[in-house]
Amino acid sequence: MSTNKKAPIGIFDSGIGGLTVAKAVREALPNEHIIYFGDTARVPYGIKSEETVRKYALEITDFLLSKEVKMILIACNTVSASAHEQIIERAGDIPVLDVITAGTKAAIAIDGPHNHIGVIGTLATIHSKSYDKAIQENNRGTEVFSKACPMLVPLAEEGWTDNHIAEETLHIYLDEINGKQLDSLILGCTHYPLFKPMIRKVLDNPDIRIVDSALSIAGMAQEMLEASEMLNDDSDNGSFDCYVSDKPQRFQKLAERFLGEQLPGVEIVSL
Amino acid sequence: MSTNKKAPIGIFDSGIGGLTVAKAVREALPNEHIIYFGDTARVPYGIKSEETVRKYALEITDFLLSKEVKMILIACNTVSASAHEQIIERAGDIPVLDVITAGTKAAIAIDGPHNHIGVIGTLATIHSKSYDKAIQENNRGTEVFSKACPMLVPLAEEGWTDNHIAEETLHIYLDEINGKQLDSLILGCTHYPLFKPMIRKVLDNPDIRIVDSALSIAGMAQEMLEASEMLNDDSDNGSFDCYVSDKPQRFQKLAERFLGEQLPGVEIVSL
Repeated sequence: MSTNKKAPIGIFDSGIGGLTVAKAVREALPNEHIIYFGDTARVPYGIKSEETVRKYALEITDFLLSKEVKMILIACNTVSASAHEQIIERAGDIPVLDVITAGTKAAIAIDGPHNHIGVIGTLATIHSKSYDKAIQENNRGTEVFSKACPMLVPLAEEGWTDNHIAEETLHIYLDEINGKQLDSLILGCTHYPLFKPMIRKVLDNPDIRIVDSALSIAGMAQEMLEASEMLNDDSDNGSFDCYVSDKPQRFQKLAERFLGEQLPGVEIVSL
Repeated sequence: MSTNKKAPIGIFDSGIGGLTVAKAVREALPNEHIIYFGDTARVPYGIKSEETVRKYALEITDFLLSKEVKMILIACNTVSASAHEQIIERAGDIPVLDVITAGTKAAIAIDGPHNHIGVIGTLATIHSKSYDKAIQENNRGTEVFSKACPMLVPLAEEGWTDNHIAEETLHIYLDEINGKQLDSLILGCTHYPLFKPMIRKVLDNPDIRIVDSALSIAGMAQEMLEASEMLNDDSDNGSFDCYVSDKPQRFQKLAERFLGEQLPGVEIVSL
């Protein structure tokens, strides 16, 4: 682990969805410097082979390591599923957290029964069965109901998170897990926190706990930095630097929607 | 132009949408050999810079030329808008047709008035104003109403082309051009032919002519091959070879939906 408390935290995603993680980290740890990388030139990862995803993820890891980060947060479910081990190996003694582990731990840490956990995510995440495996490792015997919701990312990017189409789409996806007596539902995609109010409305049972893995990974990062006395104790407020591999149309508008605040300067880097 | 009538026709797209063009060519010219290339590893092109799109398009052109094609069909609106000139130059005396020119010519060739033409497409295609420019060059004074419909590609890939969500989504996009007294509506994206029945239902005026640029480019290819006496006159039926740069999940199912028939063997090549 880096011994420099003032070093930045590196966060990355295939695109801009991971900004929901950056947002959660900024709120939990306002003194920290954050470096975000979004691979906007090569998004989406979910339709690519595991080999390609690993290659890209390691290129980004190298970029973050060149910025001397003290911790890396994988804010991308596809990368968490396909390249987590490889990134840990590449990062050496820099700790690496990922959204799948964080979401799973948070779901299981909640008081109450964990007999039935639901997971929603992209096709790639659900087909990888990564959440199922992580839940079984931590809580053998829990029944996991997974559902791929491919339309939610484009809906979020169109800004249709609270209209009638979003509601009807969520019904098509969630009616199948409604009635399964879920204890909690993990939002297994960094775009999905934008649908939280609508998901709550569509779920048949108000007692289902919705686990937002952006909040979970921010909490895990905080705990780990506290435990290792690596929190930035400067009170001069943190910073936020954003790097992308391409700056697509609508980028600024979309990014601000995900981040919930005005974007800082954005630099384009090619890896 | 190649003098070998038996040489294949090369067709390419950023992904699988161009299979609607391959389908139209196979139906119009069943004796021809077709080579299709889908850049599934690097899809979507619409969010990439023009420079990147040109680089990729020329790599694919070189691949098709190495297969000694007698004609190249650009079955991708983004490439047609950004790299058409460069591909013509690279292809030398091999003729190159593109979906934007084909769709525009077809819209204008229809009998009747051309005062108001509508164009729907992806964000990238609509923002490029390529159809507007092509229509104005051919038919100065025509009013062009363009509308980006970003949700249609994901809907087509989810298979939701005839459900209530497709209908409601098309209403959101098309109600704006309903009432504009359109003479024709160009489907400016190779995914959109899958929505033809629903688009017809949502349009307020049954007299609007829907221009499917997959059919248009197949027709143009046929005319050009006939005129130059380059049609394959072998009666032993054509063939269809499909190359992709990556084979994503759901590829087979999606490809068959676009192609309307079972896919032949698919080979992965990296460019």
